[in-house]
Amino acid sequence: MNSPDLSQLRAEIDKTLASFAAERSVSLLGIGPELAPVAKAMSDFITQGGKRFRPIFAYLGYLGSGAEPRAEVLRACTSLELVHVCALIHDDLMDGSNTRRNKPAIHKAFQQYHQDASYNGSSERFGSSSAILLGDLALVWADRLLVESGISGDELLQVQSVFGDMRDELMAGQYLDVLEGALATTSIDRALKVARFKSGKYSIERPLHFGAALSGKKELMNTYSSFGLPLGEAFQLRDDLLGVFGDPDVTGKPAGDDLREGKRTVLIALTMELVDQKDRDLLSASLGKEGLDRTQILQLQEIISSSGAIAQVEKLITELRDKAISALRDGQVEASVVSVLEEMATMTTQRSL
Amino acid sequence: MNSPDLSQLRAEIDKTLASFAAERSVSLLGIGPELAPVAKAMSDFITQGGKRFRPIFAYLGYLGSGAEPRAEVLRACTSLELVHVCALIHDDLMDGSNTRRNKPAIHKAFQQYHQDASYNGSSERFGSSSAILLGDLALVWADRLLVESGISGDELLQVQSVFGDMRDELMAGQYLDVLEGALATTSIDRALKVARFKSGKYSIERPLHFGAALSGKKELMNTYSSFGLPLGEAFQLRDDLLGVFGDPDVTGKPAGDDLREGKRTVLIALTMELVDQKDRDLLSASLGKEGLDRTQILQLQEIISSSGAIAQVEKLITELRDKAISALRDGQVEASVVSVLEEMATMTTQRSL
Repeated sequence: MNSPDLSQLRAEIDKTLASFAAERSVSLLGIGPELAPVAKAMSDFITQGGKRFRPIFAYLGYLGSGAEPRAEVLRACTSLELVHVCALIHDDLMDGSNTRRNKPAIHKAFQQYHQDASYNGSSERFGSSSAILLGDLALVWADRLLVESGISGDELLQVQSVFGDMRDELMAGQYLDVLEGALATTSIDRALKVARFKSGKYSIERPLHFGAALSGKKELMNTYSSFGLPLGEAFQLRDDLLGVFGDPDVTGKPAGDDLREGKRTVLIALTMELVDQKDRDLLSASLGKEGLDRTQILQLQEIISSSGAIAQVEKLITELRDKAISALRDGQVEASVVSVLEEMATMTTQRSL
Repeated sequence: MNSPDLSQLRAEIDKTLASFAAERSVSLLGIGPELAPVAKAMSDFITQGGKRFRPIFAYLGYLGSGAEPRAEVLRACTSLELVHVCALIHDDLMDGSNTRRNKPAIHKAFQQYHQDASYNGSSERFGSSSAILLGDLALVWADRLLVESGISGDELLQVQSVFGDMRDELMAGQYLDVLEGALATTSIDRALKVARFKSGKYSIERPLHFGAALSGKKELMNTYSSFGLPLGEAFQLRDDLLGVFGDPDVTGKPAGDDLREGKRTVLIALTMELVDQKDRDLLSASLGKEGLDRTQILQLQEIISSSGAIAQVEKLITELRDKAISALRDGQVEASVVSVLEEMATMTTQRSL
């Protein structure tokens, strides 16, 4: 079998999402013209941006079994992107994160819409209510895309246990994330646990399992876990670094946004361990303060980078990624797919993500 | 065929929900003991209270085809109650409604939990984030209960189009509701449109369609629409009356809660048309004010009841219910089920709901 071509896969996923979003927009407008802003915001969010990692991992999980390429399976895998749309819309609202992909987050966009239209009541409340509903809609649409993908009823039943677990773990992981913020934890172990559920399982392991379930080859599950769990943690650790030091053009978020949101990441936990009491106090007092200005962000970045925590996180990322890649060498996964999974492992953990 | 026994149906639905909630709790606790408050709140919400109208309508929709009773179909229909749990949790958060079933709404309960534990950051934000995630979880669980109900893969495919439409319409209807609040509309037509989507379709018509789809008897869809749409509107009109005048012991909400939330209902639109300018201005200025006290609520209730709007709404409810019931006389629906649907029509629109 030829190795699957990642850019071609991504193009097909994009095409599926674009036509699905267009069809859903028509359906929303059929309910009422008042829903035009909802239809447009959903379409834009779904079609503009997004690296499509979860559908790609899912489809590679399917192909890794040696199964023949099937357009309906790729469409089924594409449904995972819509679960992710829900996660991002609700996550930005919960975190109070105002920017996504260099544009206003959904709650901010609808707050602005309320203001511009001089509607009654609180613009902020209108924005957050809209974001709750748009996220819900994305979650429901994920289900619809899966069901309408063209896979059989039996295949649908086959994949549902993974699909259910994946979404449960996502919501549970998000709750743990919110809770860690409330606990203001500085424990590396706890930060790693959140990374495992929020990203390790949800972003990589479960998508691979989803594909394996569709292929019917359950014996692949263990290999995919051994690859997906460490890689997912490495992916989250890279994301944590980007959340503090990333270029806004690349991350689509303002510089240092995670500091403003007070995210309790492994990077922060490590820094807390490495710095002196004075810096530790400053970091504790500053994390999660919405009003942090550019100078304060620069100061916090300086504390983190001079602590040596970045180097430790980079080392952890490399170790986890290498561990993931070596797990693919057990001969279970179709050889032509192994090389592409390695490419994905590099792509999801590289500095310029 | 014997007529189905409503109290027995309700007992079986309750049993299914209780064992499902227990099983999901175990699964959440397996992710981490920190999730105990989530597991408990979900279980309590799912098992304590709820009239189970939507699962009952769905199962009656199935039996109305003349199909034999089947436990797995009843379980599949029970999944609709979990969609409703999501709707209630998110709705209370969006409306800023602090009480549900005479207990704190989910966002309030988690806000309190945060306060009691002296956690860091904003208790209000912790409460709303938790409510977003618990609502999401309920939506995902609805899917799981449906899939694990024991119906076949083909039956699952058969019912998904209705299931998808129902959830789309719910979210769209909720958005229209939020928008009407922002528009501070006083249009009876627009208030009726919201009632149609929020409740007419979602609460009664679609559940009946869900059951019909499971029976495979598509020709029932029209009859169920002719019954379900007017009845659903009548149900919403009754709910609007209860939201303003209902006994807190029965509604589970403080007296006049809808006035505090500023709900733009048909009752309010009618009142606005009937009262003089002075009362209209007072009503406009008061609706949606969170701080409304008991005396102010009494004053607003007095304006509404002396306007004659209640009598008009009662008349509308009776007309709509009668229209619904007469639609059942077309001979399409199994006779033993018709009488139970009539009983449900009375139950969903009666004063002491």
